[in-house]
Amino acid sequence: MTSSATQAASQGKAPTKAVVLLSGGLDSTTALAWALAQGWTCTALSVDYGQRQRVELDRAAAVAARLKVPRRQVALDLRAIGGSALTDDALAVPKDRDEGRMAQDVPVTYVPARNTILLALALGLAEVTGSDRLVIGANAIDYSGYPDCRPEFLRAFEALAGLATKAGTEQGVRFRIEAPLLSLTKEGIVKLAVALKAPLELTWSCYDPQQSGAGWRVCGRCDACRLRQKGFAEAGVQDPS
Amino acid sequence: MTSSATQAASQGKAPTKAVVLLSGGLDSTTALAWALAQGWTCTALSVDYGQRQRVELDRAAAVAARLKVPRRQVALDLRAIGGSALTDDALAVPKDRDEGRMAQDVPVTYVPARNTILLALALGLAEVTGSDRLVIGANAIDYSGYPDCRPEFLRAFEALAGLATKAGTEQGVRFRIEAPLLSLTKEGIVKLAVALKAPLELTWSCYDPQQSGAGWRVCGRCDACRLRQKGFAEAGVQDPS
Repeated sequence: MTSSATQAASQGKAPTKAVVLLSGGLDSTTALAWALAQGWTCTALSVDYGQRQRVELDRAAAVAARLKVPRRQVALDLRAIGGSALTDDALAVPKDRDEGRMAQDVPVTYVPARNTILLALALGLAEVTGSDRLVIGANAIDYSGYPDCRPEFLRAFEALAGLATKAGTEQGVRFRIEAPLLSLTKEGIVKLAVALKAPLELTWSCYDPQQSGAGWRVCGRCDACRLRQKGFAEAGVQDPS
Repeated sequence: MTSSATQAASQGKAPTKAVVLLSGGLDSTTALAWALAQGWTCTALSVDYGQRQRVELDRAAAVAARLKVPRRQVALDLRAIGGSALTDDALAVPKDRDEGRMAQDVPVTYVPARNTILLALALGLAEVTGSDRLVIGANAIDYSGYPDCRPEFLRAFEALAGLATKAGTEQGVRFRIEAPLLSLTKEGIVKLAVALKAPLELTWSCYDPQQSGAGWRVCGRCDACRLRQKGFAEAGVQDPS
């Protein structure tokens, strides 16, 4: 039991409950480790949205098992909506973009309204599990330019959440969106992950995995690979994955 | 071509494009007929979320075909989240609730965060189709007490939508949530539907359909059946379905 959980228990308070969006990547795994370190009782939520990097779902399962967190997986076929290289095999994942370019354009790997959809599902699960924290590994510093990773988006979702739910309107629950990585650099995220002993060796970041024998290997050149490499390099940490 | 569409074309303006959430029920079918009457180019979106009233999805397909509107159907297994009689066969659909009771309690047929999830998916499809209107048949008068049918919820989602998307942040698209039935009584909805020649004979409202030979029959006693009966009775219209 963490110190916060011990504290909550000794004061007879119910522990804080959180739903943590867990893709199986570096960021969401670190966010989960952070939520556990707060002493919160966590439920992980993974969404199989038809992403080409399906291997990340297995990694999400492995991370949740390692951290002894119950996990739900929701199947949602976003290929019926399309519009992203992550859900449409006809669109290529961009490679070798430099950081300036990443900050400037929203790339084709952007999944329309993805974080709105993910947070909406997390909100539904939060109601069912009696949780009032929604934890997301969004990051607005070293990121791919996605609009739904910015703080103003997260605040707008927080405003929506209370109005959207039975818990918010009948029981007065005040949902909070927790984005502990929001203002960290990728280097900072790696250092936080190491400090929290997050199981980085289980995580998966690549958008465009290549089959390799019975397993998968990373492409090394998509935005997600490049940001991960940069983070580990700047933190002076060897990537264990 | 409707008069608005003719007008838009004669002025050389691109027609307004809308995504219309279409469950196959009375309300969403009327909302679709209303959007078409505005001269908008519509794409219907139905979500197979594991609802027990699966027959409504066939009706949604029939309505879209009749009105010559393209339709996408997204599969989303909300049974992994649960918490509602509509997605959990172990929970019974309440019957014979009177109107006072409906207005007072959020019933067990409430699907946690459903309209947030549906609007999030509609927002994704709006980005992909270049639409800036999201049309939803939400109603806050003769309804089952769901929090996510209220005007303040819809306004909060509108605020979120621009911040959530590439279209909103890069292209300056201002998304609007259109809920044309919001302030109508069920009687008013039936009258509007009749005036718009909406194909009411194709619609399905019952939450708890009973198998009947090769087809389905309505239970007649759930909130959805009772509200529908009331609407047709007060409008003095025979239900053609």
